[in-house]
Amino acid sequence: MIRSSAVAAPCVGGIEAGGAKFVCAVGTGPHDIRAETCFPTTSPDETVGRAVDFFRAHGVTAVGIASFGPLDLDASSPTAGFITDTPKPGWSRVDIAGAFRRALAVRVVLDTDVNGAALAESRWGAGVARDPLVYFTIGTGIGGGAIVGGRRLHGLIHPEMGHMRIPRDPADAFAGACPFHGDCLEGLAAGPAIRARRGLPGEALAVDDPVWALEARYLALGLVNVVTVLSPRRIVVGGGVMRQPSLLGRVREQVQAILAGYVRAPAVVDTIEEFIVPPALGERAGVLGALALAQERE
Amino acid sequence: MIRSSAVAAPCVGGIEAGGAKFVCAVGTGPHDIRAETCFPTTSPDETVGRAVDFFRAHGVTAVGIASFGPLDLDASSPTAGFITDTPKPGWSRVDIAGAFRRALAVRVVLDTDVNGAALAESRWGAGVARDPLVYFTIGTGIGGGAIVGGRRLHGLIHPEMGHMRIPRDPADAFAGACPFHGDCLEGLAAGPAIRARRGLPGEALAVDDPVWALEARYLALGLVNVVTVLSPRRIVVGGGVMRQPSLLGRVREQVQAILAGYVRAPAVVDTIEEFIVPPALGERAGVLGALALAQERE
Repeated sequence: MIRSSAVAAPCVGGIEAGGAKFVCAVGTGPHDIRAETCFPTTSPDETVGRAVDFFRAHGVTAVGIASFGPLDLDASSPTAGFITDTPKPGWSRVDIAGAFRRALAVRVVLDTDVNGAALAESRWGAGVARDPLVYFTIGTGIGGGAIVGGRRLHGLIHPEMGHMRIPRDPADAFAGACPFHGDCLEGLAAGPAIRARRGLPGEALAVDDPVWALEARYLALGLVNVVTVLSPRRIVVGGGVMRQPSLLGRVREQVQAILAGYVRAPAVVDTIEEFIVPPALGERAGVLGALALAQERE
Repeated sequence: MIRSSAVAAPCVGGIEAGGAKFVCAVGTGPHDIRAETCFPTTSPDETVGRAVDFFRAHGVTAVGIASFGPLDLDASSPTAGFITDTPKPGWSRVDIAGAFRRALAVRVVLDTDVNGAALAESRWGAGVARDPLVYFTIGTGIGGGAIVGGRRLHGLIHPEMGHMRIPRDPADAFAGACPFHGDCLEGLAAGPAIRARRGLPGEALAVDDPVWALEARYLALGLVNVVTVLSPRRIVVGGGVMRQPSLLGRVREQVQAILAGYVRAPAVVDTIEEFIVPPALGERAGVLGALALAQERE
């Protein structure tokens, strides 16, 4: 799919770099997308080449990449801008930021897909004037990004919120699906854990299947840990697993139950439906995050 | 105890406001303390009054308060600057910042004791050029503060890292000592949990008592959750429980074991003794944090 319109002013490029597909856009924001394309993620050379051709055809002054990871975002590292060790064949130790910088001779800003989505939500969506903002996605994995003091949260590496440790339900016999940690949050509560417990994906399960109560409990434990560590003003929760219509409400109830009155902020006690929210940008948060990254100063 | 020296230039006041004692200092930093006093925490009126008298006698242009909590730090709240609900008798809903502002007619900056200590370590101690920085204290409670992007971390409230949830050891029969949550991190691993399991305080237990392996495991789970959520560049761990001489080394080993190779940053894999460190300012972090708060812009 390629959509194009006349280019009125210099604008930037954004890439939502996923393990399955790349979504590339040229524009300045959600109401000004001048061209967009989408293609499957094959080899690094072929995939980067297609994106480079697309941006060359439209002209961009900078490129933002909201990428699957893990990524090396340490500017002082010899592999800064690389995808590091990923299970995706062929993509480990790929200099994704450098490839675009060399081919297009423009500024390139790389960050995780979830930090990109957090930035897009903070600029144009559910996170406006809500800082710190946390963006969680619950899908085939669990990832989290954050905006703190107007900036994307980085440090030693980038947040890896999916791999925090939470208490297991004593009645839950499932060992956990994370190849590194077994029963970390992602291992207990991402899509593959639901499928492994029931033999069916979440979208095929009834709304009253008992797995959803367990899922809500685990996700709430993860959010409670984020509340206690980061004290966000809003948490945006998206991803395929959250399409189960009653899940977000159950997660909110469990967050209140687990905090047990300790955090008495009105946002938790009275208006939790404004504290834990779905993405305002929906599935556009990824590519819009990439456009937002391209407009960052650093 | 009162120490005094000639006042050479305008300087600020700092209060380490603890549940047991107030430490007040006048100066500009660790190498320029011009006066200091310490007295027990009695009623709010008496305790604040003594501190006000001390600062009036020395002259200060601003006061920083690094306080026990919980605190209301939301500038838009009608109770901004208050200690909110505390088990300390007489101190719930006390306008501690306002009391000093009214009595001294100077700028007052209030924050948690641990955010103050994090600020002091980031300015003068173990956190210089290590941002994000997390400061943990393990004592009669567990508290955590953080500096992110040069600023103290706040949001909905302030971090309450002691109340995150972690997996229990299956062999640990202790129910947990937190009155709100039972077996949250603080409930499982603060000083009272050690005493409740053994009938003796930590300082009376042998270095090879099995409780220390459990303690190291629980603290490491807490630090791993902080690493995954906040991605700090350094974690400072202080407090009375950490005086057990082998504990910090065991915590480092357990952090590496629990991360299980997922976070491959050299700081975790190769130089963890520079990543998880004791406070450089020792027991001075509290009052120095208060002086640093008084010098903050906001």
